Amino acid sequence: MESDAGEVVSNKQVIFKDYVPGVLKESDMYITTSTITLKVPEDCTNGVLVKNLYLSCDPYMRNRMRNFQGSYISPLKPGSPVSGRGVAKVLDSRHPDYKKGDCIWGMTGWEEYSLITATETLFKIHDKDVPLSYYTGILGMPGLTAYAGFYEICSPKKGEFVFISAASGAVGQLVGQFAKLLGCYVVGSAGSKDKVDLLKNKFGFDDAFNYKEELDLDAALKRYFLDGIDIYFENVGGKMLDAVLLNMRVHGRICVCGMVSQYNLEQPEGVHNLMHLVPKRIHMEGFLVYDFFYLFPKYLDMVLPYIKQGKIVYVEDIAEGLEGTPAALTGLFASRNIGKQVVAVSRE
Amino acid sequence: MESDAGEVVSNKQVIFKDYVPGVLKESDMYITTSTITLKVPEDCTNGVLVKNLYLSCDPYMRNRMRNFQGSYISPLKPGSPVSGRGVAKVLDSRHPDYKKGDCIWGMTGWEEYSLITATETLFKIHDKDVPLSYYTGILGMPGLTAYAGFYEICSPKKGEFVFISAASGAVGQLVGQFAKLLGCYVVGSAGSKDKVDLLKNKFGFDDAFNYKEELDLDAALKRYFLDGIDIYFENVGGKMLDAVLLNMRVHGRICVCGMVSQYNLEQPEGVHNLMHLVPKRIHMEGFLVYDFFYLFPKYLDMVLPYIKQGKIVYVEDIAEGLEGTPAALTGLFASRNIGKQVVAVSRE
Repeated sequence: MESDAGEVVSNKQVIFKDYVPGVLKESDMYITTSTITLKVPEDCTNGVLVKNLYLSCDPYMRNRMRNFQGSYISPLKPGSPVSGRGVAKVLDSRHPDYKKGDCIWGMTGWEEYSLITATETLFKIHDKDVPLSYYTGILGMPGLTAYAGFYEICSPKKGEFVFISAASGAVGQLVGQFAKLLGCYVVGSAGSKDKVDLLKNKFGFDDAFNYKEELDLDAALKRYFLDGIDIYFENVGGKMLDAVLLNMRVHGRICVCGMVSQYNLEQPEGVHNLMHLVPKRIHMEGFLVYDFFYLFPKYLDMVLPYIKQGKIVYVEDIAEGLEGTPAALTGLFASRNIGKQVVAVSRE
Repeated sequence: MESDAGEVVSNKQVIFKDYVPGVLKESDMYITTSTITLKVPEDCTNGVLVKNLYLSCDPYMRNRMRNFQGSYISPLKPGSPVSGRGVAKVLDSRHPDYKKGDCIWGMTGWEEYSLITATETLFKIHDKDVPLSYYTGILGMPGLTAYAGFYEICSPKKGEFVFISAASGAVGQLVGQFAKLLGCYVVGSAGSKDKVDLLKNKFGFDDAFNYKEELDLDAALKRYFLDGIDIYFENVGGKMLDAVLLNMRVHGRICVCGMVSQYNLEQPEGVHNLMHLVPKRIHMEGFLVYDFFYLFPKYLDMVLPYIKQGKIVYVEDIAEGLEGTPAALTGLFASRNIGKQVVAVSRE
């Protein structure tokens, strides 16, 4: 029953148990049910109460499950719902920018309903002619990550040789399509035949390979890049980075977006070929999408028409139901997802 | 007896035996004596015949003693004299830019006299009010390396925190002094108490430490950089790089000049902390001085007055006699040299 005090409803939640040093397991999270009042408390200035529709599973979330302070983002709080980006519908608001019925994307909780107080991460969704779930991916953080990483960090030029690891993932599939639109030669690596097929047949990569089938990554790269690699969009780290360093061209660029192969390791693998940075004058740079949110309107102006014209496509892997979030998140590190991993909590 | 045909004299030489995969030893070179005619042959257009005065021992030379093709510089030829930079006096010339009596610096041979045919590496020495040996160091390739690396790659700003490894070496001692002149806080690491004293008392570093006395390089860096490192001028690689990655500040820069700790290893050490590139948005870039020779006149205009005013000092480690070159070169990798390693073949 709705009243001025707000309806009280049950609220299924995914709770983060405790910090995880090694491999993240589904059992590091558990499902519980609490209750929530569907109204922003009076003393909660600027608060927004939302119904979560789509939750985003992103590799960086793994690193918030470590007890590591002093990074750009604080660790998750053990015993609390997992925090991550999602698409949600506003049920009640004390924030002047959001009203009941609006759709938003930004940081929310892994639960059915969330009271969002850190509203500075929220964006209002204006264009609903596209799947709402896209705001967890191509029209959200991963999309802007691909855009900023490729255009701002890689300094790409037409005709250059581009290699992308984890290439069918949320970010990789877009970097490859941006690079093709610019006129680059683009090869991607991924972890299954299905993903390789996607890269070649759906995303229009010039070529692709399954890294799990390659005994010698250096030889694999030499097969696809006879003249070497100008731009490496780094999503995985470890052995692939070592092989790439052997194949970079002079004045090449390595844009370090992430190193997903390392997140489940207690001690990261050693990278042995950094010496190649010197004779090849390689520029290697890590970046965070947070520094580039000012580009978001410009990015939307570019990408929305491409989506509507079918010039850029986006593949999502949508799990159904909040209960599926722990498996969806851990699956990222086992290469189980095909495309951007999303969980549909509710489709209304 | 000098004649039109040219005097024939004995020519002591340091011969490079064969490619060396692991630790470079003095016995990988040997001394021999051949003869040379002190005249440029008639068919040798643009050739220059020189008497070598000072020979430069530089870490990069180690990498020419490997059978590795396809780098920016070809391997040395087994059975031939070692090739490297030096200061020399022109005895005869068929090159329009050089005449008998000129002093030059550039690529020459490890021998008493050399016939130089690849004259494109030569620079004529105009200013002789400074020690001639300086043209193997502060006024030669290492000087320009320090200048280009610091000003072109590090993007330094006044007040920033700068760390330099191998800091008393040919390049490091200059980078530190450039950084101090700009108003940075500068700490260096070196391999002995004497070198640490030099850094603090002669070169004016804010602080310095002996890395060999530190069990925990991360803890050492945290002692000197409470708020982290903005700029790391990388000369050594390996464990030091790993420790530095833990201590970099957001938007820090790592200028990779060399990785001397790795040159004598068959398999380079693994670097484990590259993941820090991402949250800290670190820009890591390798460079070669060859791309910056166009800056040499500008560099001389800056550094010569500083030298003459005593605002920049330079410490050389000068071995006497050609016979000393193998020990001088191998000593670089055992941290034996104090300052720029030079060999005086002849002082006239």
